Amino acid sequence: MKLWDKGFSTDKKIDLFTVGNDRELDLVLAKYDVIGSLAHARMLHKIGLLTSIEMDKLEKELAQITRMIEDGNFVIEDEFEDVHSKVEFMLTQKLGDTGKKIHTARSRNDQVLVDVHLYLRAEIKEISAMMQGFFDLLIELAETHKETLLPGYTHFQVAMPSSFGMWFSAYAESLIDDVYMLNAAYQIVDQNPLGSAAGYGSSFPIDRDHTTAEMGFSDLKVNSVAAQMSRGKTERSTAFAMSSVAGTLSKFAMDICLYMSQNFGFVSFPDELTTGSSIMPHKKNPDVFELIRGKCNKVQSLPYELTLIINNLPSGYHRDLQLLKEGLIPGIQALKSCLEMFTFSLSSIQVNRNITDQKIYDYLFTVEEVNKLVQEGTPFRDAYKIVGEKVVEGNFMPDKEVVHSHIGSIGNLGLDRIKAKMEKANGLIHS
Amino acid sequence: MKLWDKGFSTDKKIDLFTVGNDRELDLVLAKYDVIGSLAHARMLHKIGLLTSIEMDKLEKELAQITRMIEDGNFVIEDEFEDVHSKVEFMLTQKLGDTGKKIHTARSRNDQVLVDVHLYLRAEIKEISAMMQGFFDLLIELAETHKETLLPGYTHFQVAMPSSFGMWFSAYAESLIDDVYMLNAAYQIVDQNPLGSAAGYGSSFPIDRDHTTAEMGFSDLKVNSVAAQMSRGKTERSTAFAMSSVAGTLSKFAMDICLYMSQNFGFVSFPDELTTGSSIMPHKKNPDVFELIRGKCNKVQSLPYELTLIINNLPSGYHRDLQLLKEGLIPGIQALKSCLEMFTFSLSSIQVNRNITDQKIYDYLFTVEEVNKLVQEGTPFRDAYKIVGEKVVEGNFMPDKEVVHSHIGSIGNLGLDRIKAKMEKANGLIHS
Amino acid sequence: MKLWDKGFSTDKKIDLFTVGNDRELDLVLAKYDVIGSLAHARMLHKIGLLTSIEMDKLEKELAQITRMIEDGNFVIEDEFEDVHSKVEFMLTQKLGDTGKKIHTARSRNDQVLVDVHLYLRAEIKEISAMMQGFFDLLIELAETHKETLLPGYTHFQVAMPSSFGMWFSAYAESLIDDVYMLNAAYQIVDQNPLGSAAGYGSSFPIDRDHTTAEMGFSDLKVNSVAAQMSRGKTERSTAFAMSSVAGTLSKFAMDICLYMSQNFGFVSFPDELTTGSSIMPHKKNPDVFELIRGKCNKVQSLPYELTLIINNLPSGYHRDLQLLKEGLIPGIQALKSCLEMFTFSLSSIQVNRNITDQKIYDYLFTVEEVNKLVQEGTPFRDAYKIVGEKVVEGNFMPDKEVVHSHIGSIGNLGLDRIKAKMEKANGLIHS
Amino acid sequence: MKLWDKGFSTDKKIDLFTVGNDRELDLVLAKYDVIGSLAHARMLHKIGLLTSIEMDKLEKELAQITRMIEDGNFVIEDEFEDVHSKVEFMLTQKLGDTGKKIHTARSRNDQVLVDVHLYLRAEIKEISAMMQGFFDLLIELAETHKETLLPGYTHFQVAMPSSFGMWFSAYAESLIDDVYMLNAAYQIVDQNPLGSAAGYGSSFPIDRDHTTAEMGFSDLKVNSVAAQMSRGKTERSTAFAMSSVAGTLSKFAMDICLYMSQNFGFVSFPDELTTGSSIMPHKKNPDVFELIRGKCNKVQSLPYELTLIINNLPSGYHRDLQLLKEGLIPGIQALKSCLEMFTFSLSSIQVNRNITDQKIYDYLFTVEEVNKLVQEGTPFRDAYKIVGEKVVEGNFMPDKEVVHSHIGSIGNLGLDRIKAKMEKANGLIHS
Repeated sequence: MKLWDKGFSTDKKIDLFTVGNDRELDLVLAKYDVIGSLAHARMLHKIGLLTSIEMDKLEKELAQITRMIEDGNFVIEDEFEDVHSKVEFMLTQKLGDTGKKIHTARSRNDQVLVDVHLYLRAEIKEISAMMQGFFDLLIELAETHKETLLPGYTHFQVAMPSSFGMWFSAYAESLIDDVYMLNAAYQIVDQNPLGSAAGYGSSFPIDRDHTTAEMGFSDLKVNSVAAQMSRGKTERSTAFAMSSVAGTLSKFAMDICLYMSQNFGFVSFPDELTTGSSIMPHKKNPDVFELIRGKCNKVQSLPYELTLIINNLPSGYHRDLQLLKEGLIPGIQALKSCLEMFTFSLSSIQVNRNITDQKIYDYLFTVEEVNKLVQEGTPFRDAYKIVGEKVVEGNFMPDKEVVHSHIGSIGNLGLDRIKAKMEKANGLIHS
Repeated sequence: MKLWDKGFSTDKKIDLFTVGNDRELDLVLAKYDVIGSLAHARMLHKIGLLTSIEMDKLEKELAQITRMIEDGNFVIEDEFEDVHSKVEFMLTQKLGDTGKKIHTARSRNDQVLVDVHLYLRAEIKEISAMMQGFFDLLIELAETHKETLLPGYTHFQVAMPSSFGMWFSAYAESLIDDVYMLNAAYQIVDQNPLGSAAGYGSSFPIDRDHTTAEMGFSDLKVNSVAAQMSRGKTERSTAFAMSSVAGTLSKFAMDICLYMSQNFGFVSFPDELTTGSSIMPHKKNPDVFELIRGKCNKVQSLPYELTLIINNLPSGYHRDLQLLKEGLIPGIQALKSCLEMFTFSLSSIQVNRNITDQKIYDYLFTVEEVNKLVQEGTPFRDAYKIVGEKVVEGNFMPDKEVVHSHIGSIGNLGLDRIKAKMEKANGLIHS
Repeated sequence: MKLWDKGFSTDKKIDLFTVGNDRELDLVLAKYDVIGSLAHARMLHKIGLLTSIEMDKLEKELAQITRMIEDGNFVIEDEFEDVHSKVEFMLTQKLGDTGKKIHTARSRNDQVLVDVHLYLRAEIKEISAMMQGFFDLLIELAETHKETLLPGYTHFQVAMPSSFGMWFSAYAESLIDDVYMLNAAYQIVDQNPLGSAAGYGSSFPIDRDHTTAEMGFSDLKVNSVAAQMSRGKTERSTAFAMSSVAGTLSKFAMDICLYMSQNFGFVSFPDELTTGSSIMPHKKNPDVFELIRGKCNKVQSLPYELTLIINNLPSGYHRDLQLLKEGLIPGIQALKSCLEMFTFSLSSIQVNRNITDQKIYDYLFTVEEVNKLVQEGTPFRDAYKIVGEKVVEGNFMPDKEVVHSHIGSIGNLGLDRIKAKMEKANGLIHS
Repeated sequence: MKLWDKGFSTDKKIDLFTVGNDRELDLVLAKYDVIGSLAHARMLHKIGLLTSIEMDKLEKELAQITRMIEDGNFVIEDEFEDVHSKVEFMLTQKLGDTGKKIHTARSRNDQVLVDVHLYLRAEIKEISAMMQGFFDLLIELAETHKETLLPGYTHFQVAMPSSFGMWFSAYAESLIDDVYMLNAAYQIVDQNPLGSAAGYGSSFPIDRDHTTAEMGFSDLKVNSVAAQMSRGKTERSTAFAMSSVAGTLSKFAMDICLYMSQNFGFVSFPDELTTGSSIMPHKKNPDVFELIRGKCNKVQSLPYELTLIINNLPSGYHRDLQLLKEGLIPGIQALKSCLEMFTFSLSSIQVNRNITDQKIYDYLFTVEEVNKLVQEGTPFRDAYKIVGEKVVEGNFMPDKEVVHSHIGSIGNLGLDRIKAKMEKANGLIHS
């Protein structure tokens, strides 16, 4: 920290340390801060603490600030500690005391809570929409490649026949579990915390149901202390859901990185999605998928970061909570970029149609052979013996026609049922 | 590892290393293994792979094993690798080939998946019922102590008036968010994985909807590869929900440990719930709450343990997955013991009714005083100045009558609304 | 928790909750408890608080208890809370008041601290010795297989020639970094905490340098508060070092699991170290290495468990600390079992000597070809172009004679230098 | 990701995703990249692959770039992927082919490894120097306040007398354990990885001992594969040590936040270090210490983030490794800012000299009273009974003269011994 040597005053040092990169992160929250302020103002108007004239002025001014934010012209200069101070300054500069009155019965903590809830609600919605897009692509790919066999592994050992249809739709269905987690985070986030003031409520006769309706929250976080305690918990619940999604993407990316290796050669991608070398024309480095894997693994550490910040803090506000944003906001951006890039890249995946022609995959079909004999009436032990002997003697000639017919197997992917599940699951957020 | 020196054979060494404490953990799963086997057998019977006579025998034998489990007489001896081998042995010993036929179209992986899903479903249900009990107590305590003031802190500094009613019901409402997470885990767990065989389905014409109905699952995990991939993910989703609950309990326990300190003196407990010393009669160590805090903090590390085990493993079964149980099962037991002990202990909490008589809490009421003046018509700035001067001159006489009236504040706890929320939230599992 | 329903008294319930599985874990600490008691007694004797006669009796009785521990006859019954109570009971039963006097100027906390320090010191020593054994095997394997080429991968893509010599000795050298971490843990552990009493020292004129010498600690943890604060920190430092070792083993096990796949086929193991199937004779499941990987990944979560337990607890003893043992002791046992099993298994590794004969590995040698031309005088650009054209035209004929000569390359492994590094690094603990 | 909608080309999208904020982070590494390049060039010159004229030109040009970096004029524009590309471009632009020749026998991986090792070595040195400064202040404060008593707590309960001297010097001594961890990280970092090329060495006859000497590394990372595998491990080892330091600071900050509460009132700070409210003049919010606590808790999540990125990746380079910097570099900056701010703030701590005058602290002295009687000849049981009765009858008159005399107790802090330990521990890095 060279800063210390540069003759900064104590105040400046403290400011550098305590504000950190909050101004930058707060830009993301700005539009939600205005939404919260507007709802609060309308409620104050309703209960008679703002006149209609004051309300009109505030509406106009807040609309003006919203435009600035949308146009990218809103900035938080160094003299402001955070987005709330900046918005307050803008209102007061224009409207004088009316600008100040908007803070009646509301504290800074209150504002941060509202901003974070609104922000997370919007982001969860967006993530869930992106997941739907990714899901749709997976179902489409499964349909397209349902006939193409893929070796199924256990313990990294060649084991049983699978198919690209199975593989793609497995990840599709896996995403549904992540949607359940995301739904839970959404329900936690979709509660109005406004009105908790500094965490213990206020003596003003505020109408919290009014602000709930104004901001479109499904529910009210009733207890003011509970509203304050949701700080950290809300972020962590979201991070749990994000980790769940990230875990699915990371595993899928790992599959792809492996399958692109010369030792597998199951899938490939157009040159613009890989990096290579003209001297090693075989080399197609899966950088995009490695970075998806890495970024998603990083996202999975977010709940731990948040837990460490909040854990063992007794109830009541502590300044530590300010640091929750630092990991959360970039984490959300990273996860969304992974979803976007994965969807973008996967749409041009190229599938090797002749994998099981290779000799090493013959053994995939031994179990099928045994099952066939059993279904034709041979007792299991005998069937097992017959096939085993052929294998040992080198006479095993695999019948590569796979006749799986039960739901969820190669011959019966059940894509419609998977789609119906997703539709139902995703309905909670997108209804 | 002295074991190595004791002349064990290679096989024995490998067994010791690979089986670990699985036999012990599997006892917990035994009853679910039988339920899964029964459902599978009935399905095999339905599709004609088991005769009615065979089915009858299996039903009887499985019922017999269930009784042994319930009576605590079921053991997994060292010669069996796990619960599945033991049950298989028992059936085969009694029924010969019929006992073996039950494994048609089912693999060991399949069985573990089913056992874990059934086990987690039962445990989540139980945890959620215990949470309801704890919640009810909190609401009752909030009602009982709604008039008793408690200092509200921010930054550990005396800040605003709160009340025991607020405090108890805040934790009650906080639990509802944990129920949302638990519901998500329940939805993830409440899907039938049976029929995925070794993770790629099978060539037998099994009827997976039949086993779904038999075991009372709400849904089928359609894709066989997805079913196999749910291993680890299911456990981790449950662990996320458990962490959520544990985080709430841990914070509450921290509050209590602090409030029992001589420096606060807000609450106390009967002697049997504390440890002390006759030479220091003031000392009432909150061991129970420290252990709740510590155990719940430990539970919060469970998702990271599970994540580390499964992360970056490509799709398909890997033996590593066997280790998931080791942390999961004791973690569930620990969380349940904390819920139980917390409910048990909290029911005898003693509340200090005169906290705010102490001088250091006078300042709690300055903000109220300002608000009162504002509501009576004094402009905020003037009100602030008036009160500020009194404080500085030492003339501030706090009016300790708190008149908070909005929903979620001291004078209007909204317990009915909180109860209604909980009822709705907990309905998903207990309907 | 069925226990609750069984009519247990409050005391029994509290006992079940607070003692947990401490009695079992404490058996591991028993011998260290006796060592600590003996050292403390000798010091009390030295400063005149125990007579020579009392000292003689205590020596004999403690020796007797040590024998019981060594013979496996020492048990901690349910009526004792922990090992300390049991030892105290045994001494008092035999020696009356003399047995009690040993607790002069010593608290329970003191004892736990000493036991844990002594225990960890012994375990770190043992782990470091096992690492030396594993290291020696790796160096030997590197020497044996130094001529056998192995494809080197980047991004999972076939990239450059490597060798088994490089691979084995890379893990050997990697272990040295883990030894540095282990040394740090050792230095932290190798400080005598005895004499801190309940964490604030005592008014008895105890001689802490005497107990330091008696127990063979290299240093004294001087400040009593610091000694108490080392609880948790000591365990976590050890867990950091354990994680470091575990990370190396886990990566190595991952390599092996991959290399055993039919898609690589680089290494194999005798049948007794793998599991398979007679119907799929190609299948050799690497269970041992998957479990090493999984167990070592689990060990890597230990620091997070310990951190969550201790984090944000202010100074001074808290009962939460009792829970540190629960993860630590099994974690140490797991790590040692992995080291032992890895050494045992790896000694029978079978190496494929003809890997690079396969066509897909031809491209490994393109960079070498370019370098050769450059070293012969061709400008890099031209060399690159020449080789690139051959590759594209399919005329590239790899010269598989690798002529790497610099230290740390295929042709010059520098095993002696690596051995010398290890010897120096491991000297801190084993001097 | 609005970016996607803005009509970016595929290349641009890929670039945005894969490069991330690398350019910004790489600015921190720039000066180390030049040091590494210079060392590599000198070695190439030594082995005859660069002429003296070429060497002279490179020396001058690299010196010029160093000046730009020092003056803050070095930038990495969007057309460059990273610092390495930018430096290469600058050299080639000025020196043509000579600028390119510097890359003979060196890969991008090589460069990153060297940069990270050099960077971490410098940062660890700086952190360790800052710790020494903080330590010195603590020893000084301990000396200044050695006579002032402080209540000692166990279980948050008033327990035994302590002192500010004990408290300050406890944290001083605690830092020494963190230095041991830091030393281990330093030893791991202080090894030259240069010459591993893409992770498998090269066919050029490079002289790795020469670059080791040029860059002042204490040792060579011999094996090229081990050098490549150190990526991630090096960062994580450093993060373990950072966590260790952070854990100590965080606990200390928690103590301070508590002690500043009105419920303790043990310490206070000048107004510029706290935030408050004119209406609540008693309120001095410890924001600085809350942020130290929070930031240090966040730092403690860093090893988990790094572990998740690297875990279960087999040997050989993977692009995921690029993401290690993202958490590491800001983490180091955060830790240093905490050390600096803590040292700065603590130097103006104000200590309450009359704490133990308060009635609630009388019981601190009961144990002392018993010990005194015992030392005067009363049997322990009788002494205990005598004091116990006084306490119960309310006649206990504490003698607040504490006469602890053993090393590490209130009356004998042993600061010189603690200083000597620190000097020895810190000698490894600062010799």
